[in-house]
Amino acid sequence: MITHGISANLALDQEINRRRACGERLLHLGFGEARLPVHSGMVEALLAGAHRRAYGPVAGDEAARAAVAGYFGRRRLPTEADQVVLAPGSKPLLFALIAAVDGDVLLPRPCWLTYAPQARLLGRRVFWVDVPAECGGVPDPDLLASAVHRARAEGGSPRLLIMALPDNPTGTTAPPDVVRRICDVAGAYDLVMVADEIYRDLAHDPDRDYLSPAEVAGDRTVITTGLSKTHALGGWRAGAARFPAGARGELLRSRVLATASEVWSSLAGPVQSVVEYAFGEPRDLADYVRAGARMHAAATRAVHQVLVLAGADCRAPSGGFYLYPDFRRLAGDLARQGVHDSASLERELLHSCGIAVLGGHHFGDDPAALRFRAATSLLFGDEPEAYREAMEADDPMGLPAAKDALRQLADGLARLTD
Amino acid sequence: MITHGISANLALDQEINRRRACGERLLHLGFGEARLPVHSGMVEALLAGAHRRAYGPVAGDEAARAAVAGYFGRRRLPTEADQVVLAPGSKPLLFALIAAVDGDVLLPRPCWLTYAPQARLLGRRVFWVDVPAECGGVPDPDLLASAVHRARAEGGSPRLLIMALPDNPTGTTAPPDVVRRICDVAGAYDLVMVADEIYRDLAHDPDRDYLSPAEVAGDRTVITTGLSKTHALGGWRAGAARFPAGARGELLRSRVLATASEVWSSLAGPVQSVVEYAFGEPRDLADYVRAGARMHAAATRAVHQVLVLAGADCRAPSGGFYLYPDFRRLAGDLARQGVHDSASLERELLHSCGIAVLGGHHFGDDPAALRFRAATSLLFGDEPEAYREAMEADDPMGLPAAKDALRQLADGLARLTD
Repeated sequence: MITHGISANLALDQEINRRRACGERLLHLGFGEARLPVHSGMVEALLAGAHRRAYGPVAGDEAARAAVAGYFGRRRLPTEADQVVLAPGSKPLLFALIAAVDGDVLLPRPCWLTYAPQARLLGRRVFWVDVPAECGGVPDPDLLASAVHRARAEGGSPRLLIMALPDNPTGTTAPPDVVRRICDVAGAYDLVMVADEIYRDLAHDPDRDYLSPAEVAGDRTVITTGLSKTHALGGWRAGAARFPAGARGELLRSRVLATASEVWSSLAGPVQSVVEYAFGEPRDLADYVRAGARMHAAATRAVHQVLVLAGADCRAPSGGFYLYPDFRRLAGDLARQGVHDSASLERELLHSCGIAVLGGHHFGDDPAALRFRAATSLLFGDEPEAYREAMEADDPMGLPAAKDALRQLADGLARLTD
Repeated sequence: MITHGISANLALDQEINRRRACGERLLHLGFGEARLPVHSGMVEALLAGAHRRAYGPVAGDEAARAAVAGYFGRRRLPTEADQVVLAPGSKPLLFALIAAVDGDVLLPRPCWLTYAPQARLLGRRVFWVDVPAECGGVPDPDLLASAVHRARAEGGSPRLLIMALPDNPTGTTAPPDVVRRICDVAGAYDLVMVADEIYRDLAHDPDRDYLSPAEVAGDRTVITTGLSKTHALGGWRAGAARFPAGARGELLRSRVLATASEVWSSLAGPVQSVVEYAFGEPRDLADYVRAGARMHAAATRAVHQVLVLAGADCRAPSGGFYLYPDFRRLAGDLARQGVHDSASLERELLHSCGIAVLGGHHFGDDPAALRFRAATSLLFGDEPEAYREAMEADDPMGLPAAKDALRQLADGLARLTD
């Protein structure tokens, strides 16, 4: 049960960087990394945390956990510091959560490409449930109960449902009524839910209703989050989880801590200081996060338009920096180019059109579908300064780099079906 | 297959810190943390690495890996940067190595308390092999072949042997002839070996022969190491692994990278700068490591003497900061105090004698044996300044804190058998 390649998104990013270093002009829509300039307060916090060099509590220091608790409290989720666990990224926390639940895993199809390999590494079976037509990141509530029955009929024991709101790869957010209906089914079948909310603060419209599964089914929902996306700090590795209050939450948390203590010990001390600072949400850091969200919103809207003009069906993005177009209506044209599934679509886009994306098969989707994920987070180029400009611009898509990127995309897509 | 408590050493440390905060005067021999003052160059390197905020290569940046390769090259192990993988501690690397080998795990008894829970988390069986009389950290070479046969007879498939040189918990180093004999057996039974060399540079006598299994069986030995012990940076989480050159090493490395990419992504960027600096071994950093080793040597020698005087059998320490006494000769006296196994010995030492240690059962040892691990790394107190003084002193054990600690230990042990 071992995956032999490295995670496809990391592998593609390494490949693109190599090819660009050799002079290729590629449009990199293949990697979900926000390359914003790092907020100076974060660097100061890291330096201030340099003295944290001793082994500390596995869960993280009290002050850092209290800051995370406060963050959730400001989102209608009253939280004690003891409900929080920090880790080097939300990735290890998701891994430990899968290990903590005695049973198999239900995943929305498509979903982030790491959940399934994590489950397999731990010897858990994965059962897929298609996402609704209106949004990704969650199972279609009408299909969830039957998926549980089917899994059981196949000898599985589905106990854990992992979701993302907003999600990777579709860049959409499950609306409140969908969340409520999923929570009903989860209650009926005694499922533990993990809500991966790492993109939550990148909601494109901050006034739009957001409902966390933890608000509906507080006793059975764990939330994971981190600083990689909102604060453009993927390389610093900072993640956090919020566990339910009460016996079930305590059991899950103690199991996650057991795994943490044997696999990674704790989050690096200096990064705990960063967590304490960032989750405290000082005003100008919150402004920075909002400015990033506005920039991502503009980029995804513009790319969405290009994709739809090129003939794709694509959900309108509402959070984060992804789009998930479906080119089924162009299947005939694509077949003439030798494109008949998502792997050949990904390959053709890279080799003939200079556009790097990840085919839907990487996200658990039907390999025969003509779908891929486009990440717009690198649309403004490679330099943090370009992102500072885009964050401050009234019309970031009017910047030359963005206009170039959109033109390259439109031209590439036209070539694809020529 | 889930361990429900956190790793016993981390749990005990948290407990001791709580009780001391309440005013209890405890001699903390329960935790292997070197609390040396952090070398200023390490802090500077961390700050210099703050700009490393992007997701980077899973294995770690080239320059940091090259520094680790250089470190091994200076130890008779020519190494390319591509043979190196960095991670947040050596713990996750050990975990990924267990996942990378298709088979069960052979462990010396006693051994570090994390190997076995890691194996169980991955669904691997653990087969124990007693250490020789002369040293810990490795299986008795005379018992290894029969242990493989016995494991196979029980339906196991032992493929991975994990060792530590010098080791935790006995603080001793397998001599070259023992290493060679183990490598012979490993070759005969096609075992992959992991040599956990995190204490290697804390050899008490740097002129004494050290032979790494990777020098003898280079194609089947992976080395793990890190900065937690030599540089007193457990809280910064820096680890590294060296893989064999050639096909077998490449396969293992690619599997470890696959697990890494799904579980922790990469070592934090700023800490990669620290790795690059530290494994470059600038002169005064090397002097710092040597001074620490001299201090630990003095402390373990002195504690060894107290333990032997109290009636224990105990191997003479040769590296790191641990001792592993056996009180079998006092079994009669101990039984009268209600002490009849390592758990009750640990309990009695803590509650009646104010001495915190970890009983041998935590290390996989026979629970009926009257053995425990004493860590001497915290003997000089809680303050880094005390350790600076001890590192610089001609006779660190003449310092008041050390004399107090030895007296408290001698008195406590006397009370134990009174």
